[in-house]
Amino acid sequence: MRTTIKELLSDYKKILHHDITVQGWVRAFRSNRFIALNDGSTINNLQIVVDFEQFDENIIKNISNAASLKIVGEVVESQGAGQSIEIIAKKIIILGDNFTEERDKTILQPKKHSLELLREQAHLRFRTNLFSAVFRVRSSVSFAIHQFFNQNQFFYMNTPIITGADAEGAGEMFGVTNFDLNNIPRDENGDIDFEQDFFGKKTNLTVSGQLNVETAMMGLGRVYTFGPTFRAENSNTTRHLAEFWMVEPEVAFNNLEDNIDLAEDFLKYVINYVLENCKDDLDFLDKRFAEEQKQKPEKDRASEGLIEKLQNVLEKRFKRVSYTEAIDILKNSKENKKGKFQFPIEEWGADLQSEHERFLVEKHFECPVVLFDYPKEIKAFYMKLNEDGKTVAAMDVLFPGIGEIIGGSQREDKFDVLTAKMKAMNVDEHELWWYLDTRKFGSVPHAGFGLGLERLVLFVTGMTNIRDVIPFPRTPHTAEF
Amino acid sequence: MRTTIKELLSDYKKILHHDITVQGWVRAFRSNRFIALNDGSTINNLQIVVDFEQFDENIIKNISNAASLKIVGEVVESQGAGQSIEIIAKKIIILGDNFTEERDKTILQPKKHSLELLREQAHLRFRTNLFSAVFRVRSSVSFAIHQFFNQNQFFYMNTPIITGADAEGAGEMFGVTNFDLNNIPRDENGDIDFEQDFFGKKTNLTVSGQLNVETAMMGLGRVYTFGPTFRAENSNTTRHLAEFWMVEPEVAFNNLEDNIDLAEDFLKYVINYVLENCKDDLDFLDKRFAEEQKQKPEKDRASEGLIEKLQNVLEKRFKRVSYTEAIDILKNSKENKKGKFQFPIEEWGADLQSEHERFLVEKHFECPVVLFDYPKEIKAFYMKLNEDGKTVAAMDVLFPGIGEIIGGSQREDKFDVLTAKMKAMNVDEHELWWYLDTRKFGSVPHAGFGLGLERLVLFVTGMTNIRDVIPFPRTPHTAEF
Repeated sequence: MRTTIKELLSDYKKILHHDITVQGWVRAFRSNRFIALNDGSTINNLQIVVDFEQFDENIIKNISNAASLKIVGEVVESQGAGQSIEIIAKKIIILGDNFTEERDKTILQPKKHSLELLREQAHLRFRTNLFSAVFRVRSSVSFAIHQFFNQNQFFYMNTPIITGADAEGAGEMFGVTNFDLNNIPRDENGDIDFEQDFFGKKTNLTVSGQLNVETAMMGLGRVYTFGPTFRAENSNTTRHLAEFWMVEPEVAFNNLEDNIDLAEDFLKYVINYVLENCKDDLDFLDKRFAEEQKQKPEKDRASEGLIEKLQNVLEKRFKRVSYTEAIDILKNSKENKKGKFQFPIEEWGADLQSEHERFLVEKHFECPVVLFDYPKEIKAFYMKLNEDGKTVAAMDVLFPGIGEIIGGSQREDKFDVLTAKMKAMNVDEHELWWYLDTRKFGSVPHAGFGLGLERLVLFVTGMTNIRDVIPFPRTPHTAEF
Repeated sequence: MRTTIKELLSDYKKILHHDITVQGWVRAFRSNRFIALNDGSTINNLQIVVDFEQFDENIIKNISNAASLKIVGEVVESQGAGQSIEIIAKKIIILGDNFTEERDKTILQPKKHSLELLREQAHLRFRTNLFSAVFRVRSSVSFAIHQFFNQNQFFYMNTPIITGADAEGAGEMFGVTNFDLNNIPRDENGDIDFEQDFFGKKTNLTVSGQLNVETAMMGLGRVYTFGPTFRAENSNTTRHLAEFWMVEPEVAFNNLEDNIDLAEDFLKYVINYVLENCKDDLDFLDKRFAEEQKQKPEKDRASEGLIEKLQNVLEKRFKRVSYTEAIDILKNSKENKKGKFQFPIEEWGADLQSEHERFLVEKHFECPVVLFDYPKEIKAFYMKLNEDGKTVAAMDVLFPGIGEIIGGSQREDKFDVLTAKMKAMNVDEHELWWYLDTRKFGSVPHAGFGLGLERLVLFVTGMTNIRDVIPFPRTPHTAEF
């Protein structure tokens, strides 16, 4: 394959004073002489030096922002600051159309644009420094996830996207149908005749692959699913998407402590991978983050820089705190006593809100925190009942600035206990017959968790709106592109 | 993390004569003495030797097929054939329930079951040798795909699953809605008021990420999407799924030949990765494949074994043949002249059917074939018009036994030519305004392709029904689990 600008800039010794061919897009053209050329492989531009007297006027005229060029030229060491090499252009070819008048009505016009405007032109924002960096980092995060699991002998499973089950109750679901909505067939009772729909039943988009991945765990031991999941919830916040990507590992023979260890190792592996493999993009994002902080009132500024924050996560062991201890800390906190929480903590059993999680992580412990052993009433039916009879072996990993980044549990592996809990919590046993089979035939202790990919990418990039870390966000009233 | 049976069997020197703990499921219990234990990490079982007189009768009674066990015992070199080591059990713990009476009504009963029955119990088939092998191989194929692209400086992009566009016309789409189907809101004209649906417009499940990934290519250069895609087509065949996984790379500055090179390198990389990393599973699948062949009439048998077939793909360069040459070969073939094709080839312009593709690959060239430069009328609107004005720079990779495994093209990068083609082919320009922007601002030559993951897994595993290479198949009237 062709040499990229990334490769050129990092390994140019052998080609110094040779002619090479490069292709890319113009990011800037200064003084009719210096082209900053970018090909997407790195945030760094390659400088092309043009002696404009040697080229057709028409070509020079068409070298403008966003134009696509093919350049043949000699590689020389750069005299200027900020780059190791530059190319003395010998041949310049304009590769395709560039409608400059229309361009100047888009975000490709070279000036600073708001994130809102960039979002409205999501199909073009890959071409900015900021979003190319964010999406290169997102790609690295995804690859690191696959590599971590592969190295640890996990098998990647694709759990179904369209599901006939709606029993898990993790959230509101989107319906999937092949019906002509103007002409929905009815049965003799006048009810919708789903028998005539594509799948012969009512179907939805999945909210989680967990129940399916548990069945695969029973055969393959260590498995994970990594795919899109959906919530039809009308949440217009900076933290919610209707379509997002989720990673869900499930491990046979793991208990809650193993599960917490796995989550911690996993997060550290991914963050370390990005630190090692996305240096240029992180430097850019780190500078941007610092500048964003300067705009804020002093009390709201982050205490650490972006890269510093990532490095700190690697260095400390996550603080492990039981729900019961956390409630004590919260109840006795100054914040609680002075009525500063929107939801005051009065007693054991309270569901923790984002404000409580952030207090624990950002004020009290000042490091990532793992909360475990939650009251059974506030957690899902499949979580393992502890011996105390009132808590379940659940765990949440809380990150600074993000809150919950991972939620998981050891699963209830005893058939009788699980079915009793399903009855108590109104989960349809009949519909989940296949899930119950995992507890009937060689049931094993096992545990797993879920990580929302976009939350992790927010953390790693320092972005603050979840719509800015997925290429084409789907939110209430938005499904553009 | 805990040691797996795979690690134990491959690297046991250091632990010989030491006590270890292993956990897994019983695959067989012979003579009240030999347990074959499997933990999913490998197709190979670990032999546990039990002196039944040393254990509680109740424990021995509960060691039966599918039971989950934790064993503490000494690692010794095995006297028996077929395994390097075995474990002399010192402690045996039954980990969970195993309802043997119910079990014997499922496929966990230790005898040979039909693939149809296994499919009906898809949640249990991970626990068979065959399906654990197939899904381990599928996992390796997926990882190899990510690793190939990562090593070649591609960025992984998640293209949207829910889409407001239905212009591409790659196939029938599923509708996605949050409406109560019993109470669909209408506007003043009595039409469905999609403004009131979740996204404020009609939405569908994606049939391809290509158009979106092209926009990312304009910023990042080399990108790929790898996610689920959907077809609401009523095809009950062994080759079609309503939900399947597709890999779609898109590369700036690539032409058709680069695209073919990429496809060939990519397929060879993935197949080589599986040969190197899935040896035990492939050996098992190879034997199974050979036995399947023996059941067939001699004329229908495959000419190569499974592993041999994979190795042969690596050795030969794929045969590159233009559509025009292919039509000549087909027209003049004995098969065509003797009327053996269901769709006789009469003239240039005919769409090739599966029977023609298989003739070229399996009979005429006897190797993978890449067909290119197809008549523009039978290919999609975005494919680049060649200088002859009648063909487009399309390419299909055809594999023995599978037919088309990859379809791709250089894309039309000229704004005027593209919009003229869209008009001629009735593709809505207005709806694809964002796609057209890729040809307006620094348009570049580029190319890409699509690979259906399941077709590749079929090829690599020797399975013949596409429902058997995805964990939970979705097909007409089937969305179980």
